Amino acid sequence: MKPRQSFQPAWREDIPADGTYRSIFKYDPKKFSHPSAAWYEMFKKEFGMTDEDFKKRRPGGDERVVLQRKPGLSDSHINAFIGIVGKDNVATDDYSRVRYGHGKSLDEDLAMRNKATDRVPDLAIHPRNKEDVVKIVAYCNAQKIPIITYGAGSGVVLGIRSDQGGIALVMSTHMNKVISVNENNQTALVQPGLMGPDYEAALNRAPEIYGTTHRYTCGHFPQSFEIASVGGWILALGSGQASTYYGDAYDIVLSQEYVTPAGIIKTRDIPGTATGPKVNDIMKGSEGTYGILVEVTMKIFRYMPDNRRRFAFMFPTWEAAVNASREIVQGEFGLPAVLRISDPEETEIGLKLKGFNDGVLDKFLRLRGLKPMERCLCIGTAEGEKGSAKHVKKMASKIAHRFGAMSLTGYATKQWEHGRYSDVHMREDLLDYGIIIDTLETGVTWDNLHRLHQGVRSFVKSRPGTICTTHASHFYPQGTNLYFILMLKPKDGNEFFEFRKQIVDKIVEYGGSISHHHGIGRMFAPWMENYLGKEQIQVLRALKRHFDPNNIMNPGKTLGLDSKE
Amino acid sequence: MKPRQSFQPAWREDIPADGTYRSIFKYDPKKFSHPSAAWYEMFKKEFGMTDEDFKKRRPGGDERVVLQRKPGLSDSHINAFIGIVGKDNVATDDYSRVRYGHGKSLDEDLAMRNKATDRVPDLAIHPRNKEDVVKIVAYCNAQKIPIITYGAGSGVVLGIRSDQGGIALVMSTHMNKVISVNENNQTALVQPGLMGPDYEAALNRAPEIYGTTHRYTCGHFPQSFEIASVGGWILALGSGQASTYYGDAYDIVLSQEYVTPAGIIKTRDIPGTATGPKVNDIMKGSEGTYGILVEVTMKIFRYMPDNRRRFAFMFPTWEAAVNASREIVQGEFGLPAVLRISDPEETEIGLKLKGFNDGVLDKFLRLRGLKPMERCLCIGTAEGEKGSAKHVKKMASKIAHRFGAMSLTGYATKQWEHGRYSDVHMREDLLDYGIIIDTLETGVTWDNLHRLHQGVRSFVKSRPGTICTTHASHFYPQGTNLYFILMLKPKDGNEFFEFRKQIVDKIVEYGGSISHHHGIGRMFAPWMENYLGKEQIQVLRALKRHFDPNNIMNPGKTLGLDSKE
Repeated sequence: MKPRQSFQPAWREDIPADGTYRSIFKYDPKKFSHPSAAWYEMFKKEFGMTDEDFKKRRPGGDERVVLQRKPGLSDSHINAFIGIVGKDNVATDDYSRVRYGHGKSLDEDLAMRNKATDRVPDLAIHPRNKEDVVKIVAYCNAQKIPIITYGAGSGVVLGIRSDQGGIALVMSTHMNKVISVNENNQTALVQPGLMGPDYEAALNRAPEIYGTTHRYTCGHFPQSFEIASVGGWILALGSGQASTYYGDAYDIVLSQEYVTPAGIIKTRDIPGTATGPKVNDIMKGSEGTYGILVEVTMKIFRYMPDNRRRFAFMFPTWEAAVNASREIVQGEFGLPAVLRISDPEETEIGLKLKGFNDGVLDKFLRLRGLKPMERCLCIGTAEGEKGSAKHVKKMASKIAHRFGAMSLTGYATKQWEHGRYSDVHMREDLLDYGIIIDTLETGVTWDNLHRLHQGVRSFVKSRPGTICTTHASHFYPQGTNLYFILMLKPKDGNEFFEFRKQIVDKIVEYGGSISHHHGIGRMFAPWMENYLGKEQIQVLRALKRHFDPNNIMNPGKTLGLDSKE
Repeated sequence: MKPRQSFQPAWREDIPADGTYRSIFKYDPKKFSHPSAAWYEMFKKEFGMTDEDFKKRRPGGDERVVLQRKPGLSDSHINAFIGIVGKDNVATDDYSRVRYGHGKSLDEDLAMRNKATDRVPDLAIHPRNKEDVVKIVAYCNAQKIPIITYGAGSGVVLGIRSDQGGIALVMSTHMNKVISVNENNQTALVQPGLMGPDYEAALNRAPEIYGTTHRYTCGHFPQSFEIASVGGWILALGSGQASTYYGDAYDIVLSQEYVTPAGIIKTRDIPGTATGPKVNDIMKGSEGTYGILVEVTMKIFRYMPDNRRRFAFMFPTWEAAVNASREIVQGEFGLPAVLRISDPEETEIGLKLKGFNDGVLDKFLRLRGLKPMERCLCIGTAEGEKGSAKHVKKMASKIAHRFGAMSLTGYATKQWEHGRYSDVHMREDLLDYGIIIDTLETGVTWDNLHRLHQGVRSFVKSRPGTICTTHASHFYPQGTNLYFILMLKPKDGNEFFEFRKQIVDKIVEYGGSISHHHGIGRMFAPWMENYLGKEQIQVLRALKRHFDPNNIMNPGKTLGLDSKE
């Protein structure tokens, strides 16, 4: 039953004006996805708010971008860059500097709403090809000018903040093409600034475009799919929503070419080798600190959407959902593509927000012993060849039932698919009224999952008025991830940032990784040395010194590499 | 029809006497597998030999090991080592120095037959635990004493030759245990000197030993399985005969602990992370040059041998066998475990050696259009959960038939399984009469497979009296490997080594990797810089300088790391 809504907040529906901060920080300027009436009622209740609180939006973000800090680079430098890429591809205006100096973290969103945006590059450069990149790196290395590589700006870990000025190298303006598809090798040679949707569309239409026999898919669908670039997937070690089957970004790269101050690293297109430590893998996850990815050969997969099978279950407990998932991915019958289990709070909020929490479904679930704040939702898909997809679904269902689950048909999965890229658009609506949604995520082994989940959750919930939902959505035979979504109405940004810092401390204390697929950037850099251990961070720093002796590549603490030793 | 044998060479059946060279170089001192009559006839014919040539064995290998070079380490050093590991675990005798200073390459075999064994360590040390290793590394680093880590000595690339003396650290004497099995995480914590058969037996019996619910398998079965250690699999980037399903050694490692001169690297047991370049992966394939593996958490797999399905096909051509294999591993229906296709020469020799080349089977094959020196054998297995294994076999068969193959039932696969670890024992029999069997192997993409195969093969066959059989046996959606087996009777070892060098040149010229799964060692080190490119070898050297500033870890050109820059 949908709650009746007495008052409807005036969620913004206007496309932000050109040149404004909001046109930068809004996730996708042209897309909107507002909180439903149910969401709205929940926020009022959880945060002790009233309709009154939603009658006036907080100001911020609609001003035109104006920087206090002028570009620190001399005209001779600027002319040198113009000499390389042409006048049209060098931008010194304030808007470009802010736009290409910010990602999509909550921190950057709040900063832009407050016009606190002085840690930006001196100028933005749009290289046309790898030859441009080679010349730019050589020049910057000789002149000791910092280079921050901007893929498409979807990062959420402060990975492209220019603490020391320099240039933002924008890869998605020109270097955004599929160069070729090799059907024999089942690979695509692409440029790093290629956007997910363009890539996927080209692969889906490979017979028409490249004359292939089969259609293909990239297999990588992070929530940021619509606004992220292939280079970002690899450099920040992303993980797509179907990673359980297709692998993480790390796994779907065959070979790469990087321009570094120490020369060009071009690895070979050979799928299996025993020729020493794999430089191809060393470069992945380097977040712009070692060099600039200029070309990459990606593994691709046959695209057979008609074979997709959806499934959804309600488990009696979180423990049952975890145990069944583990059994599914350890069972050696093939892996589901999407697999996602929600903890009791996430399950309950999900039901509530779909209006299912006091209707027929809820009664039915209760009758079946699936009780509120115990039951857990699981959704998934099986892909690939028809018989195999069918078998994986059959086996997953068999296991789910063995662990007491009730089948929900694939409807819940379709619902999730519908919002998979768009739920995130709500963030702006909520921030307009001082409500924060932010996420933290971690990798974990099976035997540490409950301890980590409970430890972090109980800390988060110790703050009154904090919604904390958790799911696991990337599975491996050895473990999974935990993705925490936090919703709260803090006094101010600083209260939240301090709270978030304490949560990360808890994640590390309970043995999780600092990140499963968001990356490190500057946000999590302070934890790196302690997390990896001194011996391991020194390995990464030794590589940094080798590739980038002048420390021009994404300098300023990213990955914790140029912290003092 | 089996050939009648007029004369039976007196293949040796005696277990080599203790203390002799032969007791070291013989693949497994207690196992024998002699050439059949058919093999014997083939060698006579191909190499222009007569029974007369097999009446007298060449001498060599039966002498007791005596070194000309005395240990170069002072008594004070030796006493220091005794102080660390105890007197029983330090060996300075000639036999230990030769035994723990040699692997199983043809080169080392011939050298030992000729008593040319002076490039050996000064002494062998058998550490009892990782604390011993820490102390030994600290001492050697302070005193600049080379350390060569000896796993079990199965390597074939001169990876443990002591060009500069120093110590051999023998991991398989004491550090050879399964420490624990974690069923929840589906991992085993093991020591690096653990031998394959001991590991597999422990996992198969996990319910009895560790109280697990399921039985497990390690998933890694190289031809050297019976004589190799887990540490060697990882450090030399091995690949097992079922790698198409289970992955290469690189893939089945969750975390590791290394002792290096720069400190202890202990990576975390987390299956997915986005915390920068993965130090866990950087260490793999380092062949003893960065540090000493002292503990490793391996991924393990459910052991369900009853579900195994075998299949075998005869394809009309090599091209058909390649195309079908590609379709099988790109088809998204799950992967076979073993998959192996033999080129026409390997197929023909295989049939001949089994006596099938002029019998009913051969007639039947010819009638079906499967002609000698065109037809190609394929064998394989499907493993895992029952329904999945059945489905993989069904799909593989369907594809094979589409490419014109005839099914041979699983008999051929069983035959292959029978000899999978033992065919290699023939090497000594043949060397006793001056016949060489050696192998070279390379990784390749699908689109370069035929060019590489034909290019290398035509060069090899340009030498009269050279048998060259080739198979592909490790498959990826992006490509496979090519494994060349060479049989010839050269004038002497040097003629062969020069020939082999030229073949490697051809492999590189035609775009293959220097190695797919044997590793680099000192044998292929001279090709490394050209193969990887200067920029990449410099990355590996930068890591070398970081981990091992005094160049004590497996020094002397291994991996091409301490060649002059």
